[in-house]
Amino acid sequence: MHSKLADVGLTIFSQMTQLARQHGALNLSQGFPDFPAPLALKEALTKHVMADANQYAPMTGLPALREQVAALIDRCYGASVCPENEITITPGATEAIFCAIQALVHPGDEVIVLDPCYDSYEPSVRLAGGITRHVPLDEGFAPDWEAFAAAISDRTRLVIINSPHNPSGAVFTKADLDQLAALTESRGIHVLSDEVYEHLVYDGLQHHSVLAHPQLYGRAVVVSSFGKSFHVTGWKTGYLVAPPALSAEIRKVHQYVSFCAPTPLQWALVDFMQQHPEHVEELAAFYQAKRDRLCAVLADSRFSFAPAAGTYFQLVDYSAIRDDLDDVAMARWLTEEKGIATIPLSVFYQNPPEGQRWLRLCFAKTAETLDRAGELLCKI
Amino acid sequence: MHSKLADVGLTIFSQMTQLARQHGALNLSQGFPDFPAPLALKEALTKHVMADANQYAPMTGLPALREQVAALIDRCYGASVCPENEITITPGATEAIFCAIQALVHPGDEVIVLDPCYDSYEPSVRLAGGITRHVPLDEGFAPDWEAFAAAISDRTRLVIINSPHNPSGAVFTKADLDQLAALTESRGIHVLSDEVYEHLVYDGLQHHSVLAHPQLYGRAVVVSSFGKSFHVTGWKTGYLVAPPALSAEIRKVHQYVSFCAPTPLQWALVDFMQQHPEHVEELAAFYQAKRDRLCAVLADSRFSFAPAAGTYFQLVDYSAIRDDLDDVAMARWLTEEKGIATIPLSVFYQNPPEGQRWLRLCFAKTAETLDRAGELLCKI
Ligand SMILES: CSCCC(=O)C(=O)O
Ligand SMILES: CSCCC(=O)C(=O)O
Repeated sequence: MHSKLADVGLTIFSQMTQLARQHGALNLSQGFPDFPAPLALKEALTKHVMADANQYAPMTGLPALREQVAALIDRCYGASVCPENEITITPGATEAIFCAIQALVHPGDEVIVLDPCYDSYEPSVRLAGGITRHVPLDEGFAPDWEAFAAAISDRTRLVIINSPHNPSGAVFTKADLDQLAALTESRGIHVLSDEVYEHLVYDGLQHHSVLAHPQLYGRAVVVSSFGKSFHVTGWKTGYLVAPPALSAEIRKVHQYVSFCAPTPLQWALVDFMQQHPEHVEELAAFYQAKRDRLCAVLADSRFSFAPAAGTYFQLVDYSAIRDDLDDVAMARWLTEEKGIATIPLSVFYQNPPEGQRWLRLCFAKTAETLDRAGELLCKI
Repeated sequence: MHSKLADVGLTIFSQMTQLARQHGALNLSQGFPDFPAPLALKEALTKHVMADANQYAPMTGLPALREQVAALIDRCYGASVCPENEITITPGATEAIFCAIQALVHPGDEVIVLDPCYDSYEPSVRLAGGITRHVPLDEGFAPDWEAFAAAISDRTRLVIINSPHNPSGAVFTKADLDQLAALTESRGIHVLSDEVYEHLVYDGLQHHSVLAHPQLYGRAVVVSSFGKSFHVTGWKTGYLVAPPALSAEIRKVHQYVSFCAPTPLQWALVDFMQQHPEHVEELAAFYQAKRDRLCAVLADSRFSFAPAAGTYFQLVDYSAIRDDLDDVAMARWLTEEKGIATIPLSVFYQNPPEGQRWLRLCFAKTAETLDRAGELLCKI
């Protein structure tokens, strides 16, 4: 059989979570919380399921949930978007990203991605018949706008950006968005902005949303995730925001890819967002404390690192420990021999830089898990 | 902006449900139950949500749910499929269909569909770069195998079938599957079998699953739906079954389209299927009683019809009432003027037959709703 994705294997997240299970290792690989979701959110789901909100939602999502998202965007970024024509609820941010790419990328189109990047972008572009051009971030995981400008061609249709950045934890500056706007404006290149970690920025830094950038938003699609923001990655609910004409095209794809996101999950989010507007405001402090705890327990280890500026991922350099192992081998060794599962950084690159020795740790974990991780990692 | 799906509008289901809401019409258009989901299923969801089964499921679905599906397939069809390598849980049957098409159809490939057919097939094929060849079913909505044979070409990669059949309610015979197998075998054409109404067959008829047809299953993908079988269309959970090599290719797509279906919904289905194996066995009788009630209340109307053999849809011919209106106009008129929303048949065709005067009524409704529908329809 002739494969559409010949070289694609199981995602690194599934691989490492499986390996962690096999070896009973502490799992800091795949990004998900190991603590309970908010009680009020769970109770709201219970209420709506028992009240029989169990049939199809509208294809674009519940109007009440789109209203909540619009209100949140207004509160966070002072940006005004129309719930009816600019917001679409999706079964996860991954589906939103996939549908946006399918709607925007025609066969032969080029799409610029900044390496390292999330593993779904490239195969999604390929399934749309497009070609990805990979521009590496610099050593500090900031964009290299000169290299970016050099990668633009007549065929460039779309740029995919992601800040706060998975896997590095880096955060774009306002100047980065300005550069991006300037470099893409004349050609009308579309921007797909993956902002699923939008509320997770630390040390007083700010998230600069494409939603609040007038020169970008007019040709952009912004994707976010209820799963990340409300500690329910397994609910697989997200959304996308785009100007009406773009939204219309993406919805045409979404209606045949999945039709709609689950109804009771949407209602639960409506209630919770209405009742607990403080939840999102408290997220940065909540996760910063976890980042700080992980960094504190790692201070006595032989790993080196700079604290993540955003996301719930911390990169650590292990070159002082096992410089003989590449990161994939190191991640495997740590899981099998040392009882802790992480994600190697190289899998997020088309051409991993030679000799890079980074692993990604997820700190969306209880204090107990973080302390246990510290114990294991300090022994290595 | 250059559209990938230029001629595509809002699906007929969204259109008619919106129109029904606007006019306060009784909604027999989009297919979904208006009665409660099983209490034990709702309670199971509550239990798992409160117990914090709220993070990512495995990409292929919970092993326990795949086991339940394998057991169901064994009970219903005496067929043995491997939960690990042949069953994948998806966020709805629509996503399963989309991923199967994306994995199997290469640019330029031809895909045969039998008109009338479900509205997602053609755009999904188009997004994969394929071309659909539309072979009409005959007047009784049975396949015309001669016309089908004539439509096969060197480029035919896939055939999409759907029995029990939406929108007609027709059911394939065993001889139909044998014909399909004979006509596609030598060229190794793949078969995508949409069996989401597999348990809804009436009057002692049998559903002939592709899963139980050895000459077909080896190159087939079979799709089904928890939403349809457990009265929870809004849970958007389904599954696909295919031989290991085919499953592997479809999973590669699925992992980047949506990654996985929601975890708590999957656990609720595990519990319910384990505790209530009789639910599925009783479905045919449960829905046959609804079909019979609708047909009984329509006996005094001026609509003509033959009772549906399967699905929860009943076609009715209105030519004795308003032969001057085509079916789209008739559906609109009935909703706006007569307070009842239906689905016109012509929208499911590439080339609707001239002068066809059919509407589709969904009878997945309470006795009260069906009686009220009868009252409204008998007055026309
Ligand atoms: C969909 S599994 C991947 C979860 C995630 O976003 C990550 O670990 O980077
Ligand atoms: C996804 S909305 C369509 C529901 C359905 O299957 C139908 O009404 O035919």
